[in-house]
Parts: sequence; C-alpha cells; structure tokens
Amino acid sequence: MAKKILNIGMVGYGFMGRTHSNAFLQAGRYFDLQYQPVLKAVCARNAARAEAFAANWGYESIETDWRKLVDRKDIDLIDIASPNDTHAEIAIAAAKAGKIVMCEKPLGRTAAEAATMVGAVESAKVANMVWYNYRRVPAVMLLKQLLDEGRLGRIFHYRAKFLQDWTISQDLPQGGEGLWRLDAAVAGSGVTGDLLAHNIDTALWLNGPIRELTAMTETFIKQRKHNLTGKVEPVGIDDASAFLCRFQNGSLATFEATRYARGHKALNTLEINGEHGSAIWDLHDLHRIQWFDHRDEGRLRGWRSIHVSDGDQPYMKHWWVPGLQIGYEHTFIHQVADFLEALAAGKAAAPTFRDGLATDHVTDAVLKSAKSRQWEKVPEVI
Amino acid sequence: MAKKILNIGMVGYGFMGRTHSNAFLQAGRYFDLQYQPVLKAVCARNAARAEAFAANWGYESIETDWRKLVDRKDIDLIDIASPNDTHAEIAIAAAKAGKIVMCEKPLGRTAAEAATMVGAVESAKVANMVWYNYRRVPAVMLLKQLLDEGRLGRIFHYRAKFLQDWTISQDLPQGGEGLWRLDAAVAGSGVTGDLLAHNIDTALWLNGPIRELTAMTETFIKQRKHNLTGKVEPVGIDDASAFLCRFQNGSLATFEATRYARGHKALNTLEINGEHGSAIWDLHDLHRIQWFDHRDEGRLRGWRSIHVSDGDQPYMKHWWVPGLQIGYEHTFIHQVADFLEALAAGKAAAPTFRDGLATDHVTDAVLKSAKSRQWEKVPEVI
Amino acid sequence: MAKKILNIGMVGYGFMGRTHSNAFLQAGRYFDLQYQPVLKAVCARNAARAEAFAANWGYESIETDWRKLVDRKDIDLIDIASPNDTHAEIAIAAAKAGKIVMCEKPLGRTAAEAATMVGAVESAKVANMVWYNYRRVPAVMLLKQLLDEGRLGRIFHYRAKFLQDWTISQDLPQGGEGLWRLDAAVAGSGVTGDLLAHNIDTALWLNGPIRELTAMTETFIKQRKHNLTGKVEPVGIDDASAFLCRFQNGSLATFEATRYARGHKALNTLEINGEHGSAIWDLHDLHRIQWFDHRDEGRLRGWRSIHVSDGDQPYMKHWWVPGLQIGYEHTFIHQVADFLEALAAGKAAAPTFRDGLATDHVTDAVLKSAKSRQWEKVPEVI
Amino acid sequence: MAKKILNIGMVGYGFMGRTHSNAFLQAGRYFDLQYQPVLKAVCARNAARAEAFAANWGYESIETDWRKLVDRKDIDLIDIASPNDTHAEIAIAAAKAGKIVMCEKPLGRTAAEAATMVGAVESAKVANMVWYNYRRVPAVMLLKQLLDEGRLGRIFHYRAKFLQDWTISQDLPQGGEGLWRLDAAVAGSGVTGDLLAHNIDTALWLNGPIRELTAMTETFIKQRKHNLTGKVEPVGIDDASAFLCRFQNGSLATFEATRYARGHKALNTLEINGEHGSAIWDLHDLHRIQWFDHRDEGRLRGWRSIHVSDGDQPYMKHWWVPGLQIGYEHTFIHQVADFLEALAAGKAAAPTFRDGLATDHVTDAVLKSAKSRQWEKVPEVI
Repeated sequence: MAKKILNIGMVGYGFMGRTHSNAFLQAGRYFDLQYQPVLKAVCARNAARAEAFAANWGYESIETDWRKLVDRKDIDLIDIASPNDTHAEIAIAAAKAGKIVMCEKPLGRTAAEAATMVGAVESAKVANMVWYNYRRVPAVMLLKQLLDEGRLGRIFHYRAKFLQDWTISQDLPQGGEGLWRLDAAVAGSGVTGDLLAHNIDTALWLNGPIRELTAMTETFIKQRKHNLTGKVEPVGIDDASAFLCRFQNGSLATFEATRYARGHKALNTLEINGEHGSAIWDLHDLHRIQWFDHRDEGRLRGWRSIHVSDGDQPYMKHWWVPGLQIGYEHTFIHQVADFLEALAAGKAAAPTFRDGLATDHVTDAVLKSAKSRQWEKVPEVI
Repeated sequence: MAKKILNIGMVGYGFMGRTHSNAFLQAGRYFDLQYQPVLKAVCARNAARAEAFAANWGYESIETDWRKLVDRKDIDLIDIASPNDTHAEIAIAAAKAGKIVMCEKPLGRTAAEAATMVGAVESAKVANMVWYNYRRVPAVMLLKQLLDEGRLGRIFHYRAKFLQDWTISQDLPQGGEGLWRLDAAVAGSGVTGDLLAHNIDTALWLNGPIRELTAMTETFIKQRKHNLTGKVEPVGIDDASAFLCRFQNGSLATFEATRYARGHKALNTLEINGEHGSAIWDLHDLHRIQWFDHRDEGRLRGWRSIHVSDGDQPYMKHWWVPGLQIGYEHTFIHQVADFLEALAAGKAAAPTFRDGLATDHVTDAVLKSAKSRQWEKVPEVI
Repeated sequence: MAKKILNIGMVGYGFMGRTHSNAFLQAGRYFDLQYQPVLKAVCARNAARAEAFAANWGYESIETDWRKLVDRKDIDLIDIASPNDTHAEIAIAAAKAGKIVMCEKPLGRTAAEAATMVGAVESAKVANMVWYNYRRVPAVMLLKQLLDEGRLGRIFHYRAKFLQDWTISQDLPQGGEGLWRLDAAVAGSGVTGDLLAHNIDTALWLNGPIRELTAMTETFIKQRKHNLTGKVEPVGIDDASAFLCRFQNGSLATFEATRYARGHKALNTLEINGEHGSAIWDLHDLHRIQWFDHRDEGRLRGWRSIHVSDGDQPYMKHWWVPGLQIGYEHTFIHQVADFLEALAAGKAAAPTFRDGLATDHVTDAVLKSAKSRQWEKVPEVI
Repeated sequence: MAKKILNIGMVGYGFMGRTHSNAFLQAGRYFDLQYQPVLKAVCARNAARAEAFAANWGYESIETDWRKLVDRKDIDLIDIASPNDTHAEIAIAAAKAGKIVMCEKPLGRTAAEAATMVGAVESAKVANMVWYNYRRVPAVMLLKQLLDEGRLGRIFHYRAKFLQDWTISQDLPQGGEGLWRLDAAVAGSGVTGDLLAHNIDTALWLNGPIRELTAMTETFIKQRKHNLTGKVEPVGIDDASAFLCRFQNGSLATFEATRYARGHKALNTLEINGEHGSAIWDLHDLHRIQWFDHRDEGRLRGWRSIHVSDGDQPYMKHWWVPGLQIGYEHTFIHQVADFLEALAAGKAAAPTFRDGLATDHVTDAVLKSAKSRQWEKVPEVI
C-alpha cells in the first residue's frame, strides 16, 4: 500500500530539533504507518547552522525566516522546536495557514499565551500535539493501562519529582545559545515550566485534574552574567519549585523540581499509591517499573521490578527481543507513530494543545501561589 | 572496675516496652559502660500482664500504679513506654521525684504539653532523653558526622518521608490495646505525631531549625468503630500529612507521612542535597547509605551504596564483622549506650526533652497550617 | 509453666563465642520455649580472657581445660566455638560423657574427622547440631518453605557464592589469635571450609545431594609470616575455590568462594532457577528475597523484592513490626530456639552432625578435584 | 567535505538484519564520519521478504542468491546477518571478491571453520569485523578504558553469565525461521555459541587470553519437534553451558550461559575483581556500571552505580544530555562508527575475524571438555 506523504517543516535545530527529526525518520521503520513523514525543510535564523542541520538529517531545504516556512505550500506540518518565547507566534501563524502543528513543551510561557494557541488550532481545525514525550515511555504507558483498568482501586497518593544538578555554579551564565532556559524572558519560568511541567502533564493524564495547590519556589543564585548583554543581571527564573496539592479524585500529592540536587542528572520520577497497589517509575532506568500488588499472597508480597521489554508490553513488539532495552529518543518515535496513526484515523492524539493548556494552568498556579503564599485553585480545562 | 548500678523502672509493656527492655539488657554486653542498668520494676495497670512481662525480661518486681513506681526509692530512672496521653503526667512526677527520665516519642501530644515536661526536668536538673531512636542507626550517624565535617557544603534541599500501609481498611477499629495510635484523644494526632515526628527530629538534628512551613493533612476513612465504646465514631487523627518548609540555613524541604501508601511497611526515608554531594537513607535497608560525591572524578561519579558494617563506621566495632548487618532494635541499644556514657561524663545526651519540644513545635505548626491553610512560623527552641 | 534448665558449657570466647552466648541469652525472651539455657561455664586456655568473657556474658564460672568442662556434672550441653582443629576431640569426649553437643562449622577439617564425630554422637545417642546459622535467616527459611511446597517445579540451576576481600594484602600474617583461619593446620582448608561450606550446607538442604563435581582452587599469596613461628612460611590454605557440579535432581550448579573479591565484605549469595520461577538471596541484605513467579500475568512479571519482616514470614512474628529488619545475630537465636523446641519434642534438629558430614564430603571432593583435575563423585550420606 | 560512499550488501533480513541496517543508517547522523554507508542491496532467498525488508529500510535493490550479491561491482561491503551455517561460505567468497566483510557472531560454528574465514580475509587483505556488539556498550567501553589504565591493579577474578528463559517449554519446536538457534546443524551449538560466545569475546578483550578450562553442558529437553522435517527429533544443542577457567594473567573465572533461568530475559553480566577495585555490568540496565574503588576513604567505600550518560563517558557526547539513556541498538551504531573511523584511518577495528577465531577456540574447548570431562587447553591466537 502506498504511503501518504506528510511534509515536515521544522523550526529549530537544537536538542529538540534532533530528537524530533530522528523520530520522523525512524517511526516508519518500526511501526506500520499510513503516513510517511518527509523532512522537507528546516528553519533557523543562522543559515549556516540550518544548512549543517539539513545535511545531517536529510532535510531537502532550509529557511531562515519561519514566516516563509509557514507560507510554503509544500509543507503539511509545522514542528516547533525553538525556544519557548517563539511557540505562540509560530503556532498561531501555522494554524492560520492550515498546517498541522506540533509544539515543544511547555505550550506557552503562561496559560494565557497557551490559550491563544488552543484557540488558533481549534478555530483552524488543524491536528495538533504537544511534545510531552514521557507519556510514551513504554513503562509509563503500561502504568496508564493498569490505571485505566482500575488495578490500583481508589487512589490515595501521588508523588512526582524532577531533579537535576547542572546549574549549581555561580560561574554559569544565563541567556543565549544553549542557556536560554536560564533566561526568564525567553523561557517564561525556570524549573516550573521546564521540568515540573513534565511531571504535571503525566500526572494529569494518569490521575486526573488537580483542584488546588500551595507552592514555594526559590532562586539560589540571584545574579548571573547574561550572555546577550555581557552584564551581570538578576536571575529571573526559579531554580527550585515544589507544591502540595489535592486532585479531584481526592488523592493528595507532592511535586518537586530543582536543578540543585547533586547526583541527579534528569531524575524524573513518579509514584502512585492506591487501595490495591502502587507503582513507581523513574527516567534514569526508564525501561523499568516498580509494581506492588497487595492482592498477591501475603508472605510473597513485594515490589516487582518489571523490565518493560517484552512484546506484550506497550510499544515493545516493534523493537527487539525481551531483555533488550530502548532509550530516551524512542519516546519521540512513539509519539510520532501514535500521532500519525491518529491522523490516519481522523482522531486527535493526546496530549493536544488543550492538554498542554491544562498543564500551563497548573504551572501558573504554582508560580502564583509561590508569590501569594496562599492555596490557589487550578482552573479546569474541559 | 565495678559498675555503677542504675535501677530502671519501666512504665508500659507493649512494643516499646520490649525494645527498651532489650536495650537495657544488651547495651552493657556490647559497649564498655560504667553504668549497669538493672531491670528493677515494670509497671502496668493489668497485673497479670506486668507479671508476664517481668518474667520474660527479668524485671525483679512489678507495680500496677505508676505513682508507686515513681515513689520507690530503689528506682533511679523512670522509662516511659506507655501511650502518648500518659507521657506528661508521669514525666513531671518522675522529675519531681528526682528520677532520671527517658520518654518515648513524641514527647507531648502538643508543644504546650511538652513545654511543661521540659520545665519539669530542667527545674529538677535530672538527666532526660526522648527515644527518637533513628538517630542511632549507624548509617544515619555516619551521615551526621559527614554533615558536621561540612562534606556537602551549602545545603539546598532536604526530603523526608515515612510511608506505611497498615490502616487501609474500613474494618480496622480505633482505640484500645494496640490501636491507641488511631485514637486522637490518646495519640494526640495521627501520622503527624507518630511518623512525621521521627522525620522532623532527624531533620532538625541534621539540617538545623525549620523557619516556616505550609501543610496539608487528610483523614481518608472518616469513621471507625471504637474499641472502647463499641460505637462507630468519627476518626480524629490524620491518616496523611505533608508539608513544604524552609530551613534557617536557606534550604527547602518536603516532608510527608502516611499510612495509605501500599507496599511500604515502615519506609522512613531522608535525602539531603548539598553543593558538593548528596546522601540518601531509608529504614527498609537501614544498614546502607547512598552517598554521592561530586568531587569524584567526572566520568566515575555515581551513587555509592555504602554497607555500614565496618569497624570504622559508627557503632559497628561493637558488633560483628564487615558485611554482617544489624537491625532495628540495635538503635535502642545504641541510645542506651550513648545515654549512659553521657551520664557517666556528666553531660546531656541528645535528643533531650528540649529537643523533643522542638519537634513538637514543628508538628504543632503542621497541624495548625493544615487548618489555617497558611504558612506558619515555627517557634525556635534555644 | 516452669522452664527446664539447660546448663551450657561453652568452649571458646572469640567471634563465635559471642554469637552463641547472645543466642542462648536471647532465645527465651523472643520464643516461648520449654528449655531455659543457663550460661554455666566458659572454657578458654587463658584464664584472664575466660574471666573477662564470663563477666561480660554472665557465665557463672570458668574452666581453662575443656576436659574439665566436659567432666562437670552440672553441664548439660557442650558448645564448641573454638578453632576447627579442636572440634573432633572435644565433641567426641563430650558425646562420650553424655552431653548434648553443638559444634561450630565446619564439623571436621575433613570428612574422615567428621565421620568420627558422627559416630560418637550417634553411639552416645546425644542431641547434636552444627552451627550452620544461615539456614535460619528468615528469608532463607521462607525459600525453603516455598521449595518444599514445589513452587518452583523442576529445578534447572543453582548458583552460590561467598565473596570477601579481607586478605588481599601481602602484609597480613597467618596463624594465631584471630588469624587461625589462614593457618591450614588449624583451619583444615581456606575458603573451602570457611566460606564454601556455608554455601554447600544451604544448597544440600534446599536442593538435595550433589552427585559429582569438578573444582579449582588457588592461593594468590604463596607465603606469609606465621604469627606463631615468627617466620615467613608457605601458605597452606586456598584463597579461592570454585566448582561446577550436578545435583541428584538433575540440576546444574556453580559454586565459588574467595577472599579476593574487592568490594564484597561477606557476600554469601544463592540463586535457584526452576520451571515456574526463581529466587535469589544474599547476606548483605539478608532480610530480603528476590522472587520471580513465571505464573504471574505476562506483562506484569518481574522480580519481587520481598522485605521479610512480616508476622506471616518465618520467625518474624517473634520480633518487631512489618518493615523493621533484624540482623546477623538473630540467625543464631533462631537456631537455639529451633534446637530447644526439637529437644523438647524429642526430635533431631537439622543440621545435625550427620548433615555436617555431608557438607564435609563435598568440601573434601572439592579439594580432591582441585588436585586431581578430575570430576569427583561425592559420597552420599544417608 | 564530501563523504566517501560505502555500498552495503546485506545478507539476511531477520533480527540482526534489522539491527545492522539501523546502524548503517544512523551512524552518520550522530558521528562525524568520512564514509557514508549506502544501503545498496539486501539478499534473501525469499524474494517477497527481501522486497519488504528493502522497502522498510530503504535498500535500493534485492538479490535472492548471495553469490550474485558478492559478484556485484557496486557493492563494497558484504554484511553477513544470516544463520551460522552460512557464515563461512559467504565470507570466504566475499573476501575473494575483494569485499570488506562484516559477519554476525559467532564467526564460525567451529574454530576450524572460523580459521578458514580468517585465512580468506587476511589473504585478500580486506577489512573485516565480527558483530560482537556488546563491546560498544558505553559502560563496557568505560570499563575497558579503566582496565587499560590499570585502575584495578592485579586481576584475581572474572565472572560472566548470560541467562535467558525462553526455551523452557517442551512444546517449543526446533529449526526453521526464528528457531534455527535450536537446530544444531545450523547453529553449530546451543547457548555455547549463541550466548557464552558474547561473554567470552568481552572477557578476552578485557582480561586477556584464557589458558585452560573445564566445562559441563546439558540439554534439559532431549527431543523436540523439528519444523523442517515435521518429526520429533533429538535436540543436538546445549541448553546450558558452564566452565571454570584460568586466564593467562593468573586470574580465575567462572562462566555460565543457559536458556533455563526463569526471570532472566537476556541477562548478560560480567564482574571483574582486582587488587584495587571491582566492576560489575549487566545488559538489563546496560547504561549503568557498578564500580568499587578500594582507594576511596574507608568509611565511605561503596559500590558506585554510575549512570553512563554524560559527555565525558564513551560515545555519550554523540547522544543526548546527562541522565538520558540509550539502548540496545546503539551498540551496533557505535560499532559501525568505530569501524568506519578505522577504515578511514587505514586501521583494523576490533573485533576482527582473528578475534572472532579466538572466541571460537574457547567455545570449542568448552564443548570438548564437556565431553571429555577433562581440563582442556585453549589454543592461543596471536
């Protein structure tokens, strides 16, 4: 059966440009898909970098102005992999041009910004998705299935953390190439939008909406040299962020993200405790899930370390043989595969922009509570 | 050298009566101590139970009224291992009678109650100690030494949890023998005083005073049959309790305790992240510490799983040989040994009643914040 | 009910003297036993050491000649905790004197020596036991129960190791106090009798007799100063020992012991693989068992880390509450409890001297094969 | 700089055909290489399968007779990913045709067969490599670097295992598509050539040549239906294989492979113990290494769990950011990258056919010893 071509126009050439490009190239080799993505064009302000990126990944052409990319008739899908402050403008323009839009997370720097993006794609009726890739870790998807089956019964607790240690140095500057995540004007926030947003997206998906929360944030290093101005400037982002909350299902939760936890490179974790059992996952060994089933025989109850690499576990029949693990970039490949399958079926694939907005509402509430020192309600996205 | 006799009068015969009695018997066999505890008398309202307990542990006599025990001239030390609602009255009477006083944790059901106890022992100038036994886990003591040496540098984060799952059943009654921890009138609070107090005591000792906090608590099962009245009654205790806080040293922390986390029997954990490294400990494998030293060579940095069983690690030269682990009850033995050494040296041994009061101030603030939904300051104990 | 007194006469005052003495004192406090051991006398050639040991543990008297101890009418049980070269002579004399005999492992330095000891206790019809304490680790006993229930089905593989690293130094002398394990004349062999014997005893108990084996041994450091002669002398013991074997049940196994495995203090491990599942245990976290059940639902199969600390798990109802672990010395306490229960019931308690002989036959075959470079049959003990 | 084209002719389309094809496609995107592999042709007897495979992976053409593939002038490199019984004939023909030859492991079914292959490539002076991919796991390569630096000092012990459980069923047939590994005529041997060969290749590379060994093998299920004949036939392969050996450097080792170890999917493990430290690795968490350094401060010694995902660790600067793991297929990508770098530099890339022969000599000795029940010398390959 002939494949339907889907021409990709990529904005951005950094870390996320690489993971997305790889995913578009690999998805069709491991999944049987009706759509075949074609790397049509990559856009970056710096032409030389765009050329180099295009050569490496096989893009057919380059652009140096994203508006031109959006205007091209030979582009079906705009993929936004550029810094956070560019998401809204590009996404809205792409939607207006009738393009499918995929956007890196967080969707907007604020919920208000994200809401305009939701409005744009929904008005234009274009397919859309946010790259919250961790939903597509096979172990996390397995957990989703188990929760949907009601395996854990009533949920009492949820815990999530995202711990890193890469900014613990007074000497690290902020801003510019590779360090825009430390520049509040570009990133919107610090770990709240960069890391905690991942935890929140997964949590909302697994455990439903959050009703209210109380939060604290901290900036440990108050001033850093700014790469764009050359001057020492106040640091506007949060280095650490934590909150307590209550979910609509009655469960209680703690969330925490920081870039000041020595020894943790990218320790994205979750734990969920229900009436009948519990589950734990973390990104450092992403191919495993810890599973506790209270209905096991009493003297033999224990946490099962499940190596998610078998054909009857999510996504894994597409890869190798039992015991052989996959890694980080595969989550993006799965996301492309799921997105293209949904597209072929005429369905939306989560997380949509609307799902991304829900997460932005939570991160907004976190930042608001950290200032107000009050419990804040989280607006519900329906 | 002849040992000095120290006659023990024990109040209580339950779980803690056993751990304390064992500690008094074993300490002198493994530590070279000037004082020799003698199990002089055990007191319980039920004479038959007192007799049985005395026979098992070798107590020379029994009492059925703690007032008589306190009045006995042949008793040097009153050890309070009875439920929380009895702590203050007995401790104050014992202090007035000039006895050394050891008291199970939490010191009081409230900080106000605890303050009267501190007043009593300090006025009477009697040696005193609270049984926060987890300070004497060798791995935890090793961590204390490392922190005192400044090994971690500036501290950024502290995390502590105490997770259990034994009350997840509507059918479990409250009150009476073995279940007084579910009766708010006796226990004072639920997991806040029972579990979180342990985390707090350790945290204050390792990381200094807490400045302010915001908390939430929950009672998942609202009514339970009461064993003493035979009626279904509202449950007054908290089943779960969590808080965010800021320490005086500028670090941020999350604390959580619950009896609704399936799969965790008594998972008391702590993690501390500093500029130069991090450490993790948990009670389920209490003989290990996870240690990360950022000053290790880059490509070889990793979390060290340190099996704390060598002679150059705290307390361990008194036990077996490297690789052979000790268990839970040894923490009480170490506490007796340290207490008796301090007594011989004319020094106080931490945690004193004053230290116990500091923890009660934090638990009070937790319960207050959970009601007020505000950040609450924690009164400092100097 | 009045307890029956059992007067203990202990030979030896070293590491094993301590663990045995502790066990005799503690067993009755945690287990409901008809027999009450009384520490009647301890025997050591050095009177001052015997006195100090007696004072510490509460022995009523001392002897400096084991023959006198054996002759005493007020002694019911001779416990041999002295070096290996003394086991046979003392045990045989004790049996002839009609004493109950408990003996540290290995039973004899050779199977021939052990056979004379078996002959003596069986002729004298006296109760007897060898201190292979690791059978009484709760996790190991749980595994025994599961095997007896046939939970694993047909057994395919067994693996056992005992890894240490404490003799990796040319400077460590051999012989004398504390170092007799490096002196072949006293110890009989090196790691084969000291460490591998533990693995073998457990294996024979769990998996049945070994039919034949092929082995290799090595002495990495060929000469050491001898503490008794003051001269550098050839080292007669094996530093490392490994063998392949076939069990009578058709399963295949690998065994290995060494004192040259850096990073392992006392890593005694076992793994057993059967048709329906597998189990793993190790001494460094002795309170856990890893359990795999192939009959679990496919996508949720995993190794369960079972924290053996609940009342429905072997021995644990006698200790604390779920989640609170016990340690090394408890295995000796369990052994005393089981032995005294068997004694009260008029039954033998394993491992008997006959069981100890079976292990000595295997260690003999290991040493023989290491020299012959041939597969050697293991004589069966019935 | 223009890349040099390297036209690939692939023989086989199974599991290994996929991993190799992926590696040829991905290597140039993550590594800066002078050579650019082009997927020119794939060969399989079944044309429809070859077509499907070609379509999926982007091969430009197909062949159904490997001889034609070897004869094609537009092919530079023959990659042999077909069953073991085809390796020698194809490799020799390819070498004679002047092609570069890459061959799946084991090189030959026997050392004799492998020796003819070595002769062919060395006579023809063509570049050659065997796909022992596990050398290119970043964690394993890190260990190689550390050993080359002498970090562990004198080596005392080596241990390796490869445990699986997928053939534990009487109902599984032998032979034909996907099950040729159970057919001795095709595979040459069972786990000895399939699994143990991996362990041996890594061991020889890390620890040098093996001098002599003693082995045992077993076939637990003696008869299986044969897919090609339709009859129940004797099983000729070994289901389990284990050996003891001595390396030339004086260290002792145990090796074991089996398909009858429940709970282990592809547990390829290694441990090495030296004077100054030890290291452990396993395939189920291939991105980690356990590292013990005895020169660490005494009380802080422990096994470091090193998450090999940083830019200063082997290969990882080519991938993502710290904390984000890679998986199984990346080992093949690394192998292609290293091979092409060596090719550009005019050097051989290990493991060469000569290295593959060395492994075949060991597996031959294993099978020989299992029959002879004697220690067997391993011929040295220089």
